[in-house]
Amino acid sequence: MRATVMFEAGDVRIENVPDPRIIEPTDAVVTVTRGCICGSDLWPYNKMEHIDSGRIMGHEAIGVVEAVGNEVRKIKVGDFVIMPFAFSDGTCEFCHEGLQTSCIHGGFFGTTEVAGAQAEAVRVPLADGTLFVLPVRQDEALTPSLLTLSDVMGTGHHAAVVANVRPGKKVAVVGDGAVGLCGVIAARRLGAEQIIILGRHADRIALAREFGATDVVSERGDEAIERVRELTGGSGVHSVLECVGLEQAVYTAISIARPGGAVGRVGVPQDEKTPGSEPAFYNNVSVSGGPAPVRAYIDELLPDVLEGRIEPGRVFDRTVGLDEVPDGYRAMNEREAIKVMVKP
Amino acid sequence: MRATVMFEAGDVRIENVPDPRIIEPTDAVVTVTRGCICGSDLWPYNKMEHIDSGRIMGHEAIGVVEAVGNEVRKIKVGDFVIMPFAFSDGTCEFCHEGLQTSCIHGGFFGTTEVAGAQAEAVRVPLADGTLFVLPVRQDEALTPSLLTLSDVMGTGHHAAVVANVRPGKKVAVVGDGAVGLCGVIAARRLGAEQIIILGRHADRIALAREFGATDVVSERGDEAIERVRELTGGSGVHSVLECVGLEQAVYTAISIARPGGAVGRVGVPQDEKTPGSEPAFYNNVSVSGGPAPVRAYIDELLPDVLEGRIEPGRVFDRTVGLDEVPDGYRAMNEREAIKVMVKP
Repeated sequence: MRATVMFEAGDVRIENVPDPRIIEPTDAVVTVTRGCICGSDLWPYNKMEHIDSGRIMGHEAIGVVEAVGNEVRKIKVGDFVIMPFAFSDGTCEFCHEGLQTSCIHGGFFGTTEVAGAQAEAVRVPLADGTLFVLPVRQDEALTPSLLTLSDVMGTGHHAAVVANVRPGKKVAVVGDGAVGLCGVIAARRLGAEQIIILGRHADRIALAREFGATDVVSERGDEAIERVRELTGGSGVHSVLECVGLEQAVYTAISIARPGGAVGRVGVPQDEKTPGSEPAFYNNVSVSGGPAPVRAYIDELLPDVLEGRIEPGRVFDRTVGLDEVPDGYRAMNEREAIKVMVKP
Repeated sequence: MRATVMFEAGDVRIENVPDPRIIEPTDAVVTVTRGCICGSDLWPYNKMEHIDSGRIMGHEAIGVVEAVGNEVRKIKVGDFVIMPFAFSDGTCEFCHEGLQTSCIHGGFFGTTEVAGAQAEAVRVPLADGTLFVLPVRQDEALTPSLLTLSDVMGTGHHAAVVANVRPGKKVAVVGDGAVGLCGVIAARRLGAEQIIILGRHADRIALAREFGATDVVSERGDEAIERVRELTGGSGVHSVLECVGLEQAVYTAISIARPGGAVGRVGVPQDEKTPGSEPAFYNNVSVSGGPAPVRAYIDELLPDVLEGRIEPGRVFDRTVGLDEVPDGYRAMNEREAIKVMVKP
């Protein structure tokens, strides 16, 4: 089959690779209806060291189950499914607690160990725990939003949950990428009264406003901190959703939280240490978050998608076939596209 | 009056200074019945740059109100009071939320701006919001434990609260100083089933066991992390109380939390950045805490002290007069004493 293979930073190719097949009896093979390119794919796109065998990319997909192993009990051939970006057994203590991204037997798609879903098909380990069977048939209008439940919408929601977003409170979202935009949706959905987006790309900001952002801060660094304080009566916001991962963004996120506030971080950290130790400590600001257990959130978010109350699929502003995936990486990296959907 | 003045690292003297007096109409003057030396006083004792005018030290006290300003309404001359380490107006939004250490008009005792309580008397700003009137008369047996409510017991409790200690859960306490020991009391009081203390001083460890510690880890660094994992079935603890503030301690605290766990930090951070960004992120470990709003916790903790259910005053293993305070600093700094009470 054809798949997206990254060999090193900037070198993404569409290659012929062996078809995925059942290896473990708990596996399924899923034909990918839609995949997409993630903002987190841009980290290796900019930094990855050369790997001779390459890495089959992609960790977000919806698709149809083509085959299941002998020990798969719930998932059936023909099921229309969401594939969350992490696989998980659904039975360990962490899965029971709703933290499937820490599953004892789990792992992540699109790594050197487990192939990804920017491809015609994908092998899904621990299929019963991992896949979410959709209660609807394939539907072109719903497809983009359903696809976001595999990562970005669940990730934005996770940031909002761990940042303790509550009705009537003030929220800031650091970053105007697809996750930040989904964070705006999540904050509004949880009842935030004021939602400040920190970002500077006109197309993304426009979408953020449509999703519910009430204020925009396009400054950076100390100026951004000052501006958020002005917008919040001087104290900062109750909840900050950090959706970037770079040092300055994390420092800003901590600095705009009001005393006793919370930062929910879902931007993949690019440094060994977290900045802002002193403002976090002296203001009793909590810093939480990490890889979102999106599998746990589908039950809660899906009805809102099915009934059209939220439309996270609007973050996709480009759809490409597999051949155009390398150009999709370039377009996202150059901020020419917000998020690129892949139709294999 | 006589007071403890620090001029620079290692230079602590007992000096004659002007008697405290009412400056603002919201002030009170309190005669100090007991003060004490805090582990956090050892940071300036080891690091402080020279100040010509010196700094009157001490932020923990119980005492008797000697005078009040014209606008003081609740506090009366003769009241036996606890002086929390921070002063606060009791009326701002943060005070209402129980975060008096972020009071808009508040501040801290024992700074260059506001004199401290290792002295015969102390001026207390915002007396109505700051002081807690005790419902008992002075009582020698209760005195040490009442004094801990001005800082260390409330601080240990804060670490436990923000680390989300719950009945039946596994807890680790990093640091065997007075705050760590009070953290053990707090964790037990909140129902923790397993309480692992990380420390290596025999006298402190013995007291920790009496307070409810179930396990002791005396290793440091990677060995300590490994040992805590062994003691917890491989995953780490639900809650970590970080009561040191040094980089290695904070890194250890983050690394011994199980996925989805929480670190409550009350050790004053000694670095601009927080270590362990990656283990915190990838395990969804939250890091919270800061200066404890001990004023908010007295209502909850006092009945347990009065009825003898907790005895945090046992952390004091030495009592000195003012003349011996400089030697008290030395003794705590050399880990010869756990915590030194001052009887002016």
